[in-house]
Amino acid sequence: MTDLSPVLSRADENLPAALDRLFDLVRIKSISTDPAYKADCAKAADWLANELTALGFEASVRPTPGHPMVVGHHAASTPDAPHVLFYGHYDVQPVDPIELWENDPFDPAIKDLGNGRKVLTGRGTADDKGQLMTFVEACRAYKDVHGSLPISVTILFEGEEESGSPSLKPFLEANAEELKAEFALVCDTGMWDSNTPAIAAALRGLVGEEITIIAADRDLHSGLYGGAAANPIHILTKAIAGLRDETGRITLPGFYDGVEETPENIKASWETLGRSSANFLGEIGLSEPAGEKGRSVLELTWARPTCEVNGIWGGYTGDGFKTVIAAKASAKISFRLVGTQDPQKVRESFRAYIRSLIPADCSVEFHEHGASPAIQLSYDSPALTKAKNALSDEWAKPAVVIGMGGSIPIVGDFQTMLGMDSLLVGFGLNDDRIHSPNEKYELKSFHKGIRSWARIIEALAKR
Amino acid sequence: MTDLSPVLSRADENLPAALDRLFDLVRIKSISTDPAYKADCAKAADWLANELTALGFEASVRPTPGHPMVVGHHAASTPDAPHVLFYGHYDVQPVDPIELWENDPFDPAIKDLGNGRKVLTGRGTADDKGQLMTFVEACRAYKDVHGSLPISVTILFEGEEESGSPSLKPFLEANAEELKAEFALVCDTGMWDSNTPAIAAALRGLVGEEITIIAADRDLHSGLYGGAAANPIHILTKAIAGLRDETGRITLPGFYDGVEETPENIKASWETLGRSSANFLGEIGLSEPAGEKGRSVLELTWARPTCEVNGIWGGYTGDGFKTVIAAKASAKISFRLVGTQDPQKVRESFRAYIRSLIPADCSVEFHEHGASPAIQLSYDSPALTKAKNALSDEWAKPAVVIGMGGSIPIVGDFQTMLGMDSLLVGFGLNDDRIHSPNEKYELKSFHKGIRSWARIIEALAKR
Repeated sequence: MTDLSPVLSRADENLPAALDRLFDLVRIKSISTDPAYKADCAKAADWLANELTALGFEASVRPTPGHPMVVGHHAASTPDAPHVLFYGHYDVQPVDPIELWENDPFDPAIKDLGNGRKVLTGRGTADDKGQLMTFVEACRAYKDVHGSLPISVTILFEGEEESGSPSLKPFLEANAEELKAEFALVCDTGMWDSNTPAIAAALRGLVGEEITIIAADRDLHSGLYGGAAANPIHILTKAIAGLRDETGRITLPGFYDGVEETPENIKASWETLGRSSANFLGEIGLSEPAGEKGRSVLELTWARPTCEVNGIWGGYTGDGFKTVIAAKASAKISFRLVGTQDPQKVRESFRAYIRSLIPADCSVEFHEHGASPAIQLSYDSPALTKAKNALSDEWAKPAVVIGMGGSIPIVGDFQTMLGMDSLLVGFGLNDDRIHSPNEKYELKSFHKGIRSWARIIEALAKR
Repeated sequence: MTDLSPVLSRADENLPAALDRLFDLVRIKSISTDPAYKADCAKAADWLANELTALGFEASVRPTPGHPMVVGHHAASTPDAPHVLFYGHYDVQPVDPIELWENDPFDPAIKDLGNGRKVLTGRGTADDKGQLMTFVEACRAYKDVHGSLPISVTILFEGEEESGSPSLKPFLEANAEELKAEFALVCDTGMWDSNTPAIAAALRGLVGEEITIIAADRDLHSGLYGGAAANPIHILTKAIAGLRDETGRITLPGFYDGVEETPENIKASWETLGRSSANFLGEIGLSEPAGEKGRSVLELTWARPTCEVNGIWGGYTGDGFKTVIAAKASAKISFRLVGTQDPQKVRESFRAYIRSLIPADCSVEFHEHGASPAIQLSYDSPALTKAKNALSDEWAKPAVVIGMGGSIPIVGDFQTMLGMDSLLVGFGLNDDRIHSPNEKYELKSFHKGIRSWARIIEALAKR
């Protein structure tokens, strides 16, 4: 279709101006969680809409009950070209504690760390302004050379990602037809390491449950009643202990329905990443994998479901001692889901199991804390393969297809509300200090990120 | 030796004056926990020492770093008579919330409830001023008639029972020779019901432990680490769950060493008390005995050891949900002991069990919260039998020998520091509202309590 090398050269030539543009955006204090910065959020949205318009997008700022969305459309040069939705967010985290910043968080700069390594400093350079601009600048380089784009691109920039995205679902629902594409490109993740590009293809889902076990109608003196009266902490701890067997498997009936083994080639590629139990767990003061036996830490955190107690409380928890038998005991429990595990079925199986352990004179209350299925991109989908090859070419190292232990709600929303898979490609590094003082983004990430997107755009255009 | 009936008649005749004396004592606001009432506590001690002196005791107020003790001695009429130590406490609980009192807590009165039932109202009428005065008035009636006592009596009145008895152990240690007798009489407990006198012969001991299990060196994101990193709540709940088997027995090695079966005749007497699972547990909204299977609730709470979790906490326990894997999880756990169970061995067995469950990369911290052995009077000791018969005669109903689920520290102190068993005889009722507003003591308890002690003194005098 087109020749890529002039586009890449153009991206190189554009870099100084691209940095100026990024810095303009970083200077806008778009802290979404703090109402004091509402006008700054609006200003960032305006700035982005203007940028997109200047690039030839049909772009607009779209009001929501919270901070506005920015939506832009750019048709492909050929009518039957693929159509993608690109997502990023222009809002940033607060900057407290401000005294820990070495540079003004809203006065971005290029900092030379020696050995040829330069970083861009400032709040949002990595999360997510720098990342979203890699895609915008890739489009610019492409258009500069070819005057058009080889794929149809819809862009969605959100301004509430750092504050829970309250307006996102209603906006997707109200604008589903306009936003729907063949698949989404999400640039809000990271590389495996500074030399190894990565695509996240699996994200675990989540089921949250809070349970309260109720025994006597009041707290009891353990001397007077101990040994005869039900202790809800005993019931709760027994129930929790029974959730896992000796091999670390979850015992709930049907829990593993929809859980498939990770393909051998994917597991083999993970083996090459050098993420051992020792180094993964060593960083947090541990050394022994605690979940299902016989699996690597990457498999355990990316490709296996879990059940974790996130909180537990009951009885007297202050200083000293109180010989009380509590009337109630509670726990917050979450399940991470993979594959096609059904959140509702997991919840029901859990509740049935708990109910089966409650003595006749006690009771249990359940409180639901959200549910989302896992996201599992087919490891051999054409789009994934194209992006993988494009990234491998740019970084001169095979891109790795990884999982993510946590959830990224937008990806689930795109799937459930717009019927789209997402390709998660990003250029952040673990040490970018997103959400913390002294956030930075590697100049290399920014530069090669732009070039990577140019290659991906080119690759995706080829049916 | 002596004839009892004139003593009992004298006790009846003395009753109005005995009530006046008790009311004088109740009017003294001897709230030991509140420093504002320090002078009142001293006044109560003086009042009691004067009373004892007037009765012919060699009595004195004995200073301590806290509130004073009162000690009195009265030799028996014959040199080889038995020698007992009588214990009571003159301090009382605070009266808040004062607005809930129907009468001034420090202006005692006789309240006629109809049907011939009269109660004495006011703070301390039951706990413990009314009770200790039953013994003093029994001595008075005896001396009024016979001019002497048939047993040697040492009296110890404490002024810090309601505030943790900080001065008691040092005082017992410093005055062991002076205070030591053949056995102690403690009047700070209750009847089985308003018609059935009781002697408490078994008190459970207590071992308190606090454990903290430490896993990672920080709280972790359960998405990133869940399934691979140790969760201390899982370790803790598994450990707690494993403390009991399916029959409710405690699984710790050696735990039941020193636990003997209750004699059949004692169990049979408990059966007659009409304390079923249904009524015992029904009062607190439960119905099923939760401890060791196949034992009555009285046996479970009086004569069997227990392990109860009194508090548990770890992770996120606030509103909403936080997908955290906590770095630490803690529990407060107590063991009630019976027979000759060794508190130290129980603690060591527990700690060894917990340590055996801690993964190599985690750790546990233990914190000790006190230890006291069980008190177990021989069910067929001569003193117990004499007191039982004396009570049965006075109340025209067999006295029942009961256990107590909780601990009474003074009894353990008498045993370990002075080598004395204690006979726990008291005339309180469950509805006396001790420690609460509107405390009362039955006039019948006071009157027949005096007569009961007169009978017991007489009975104990017979070798």
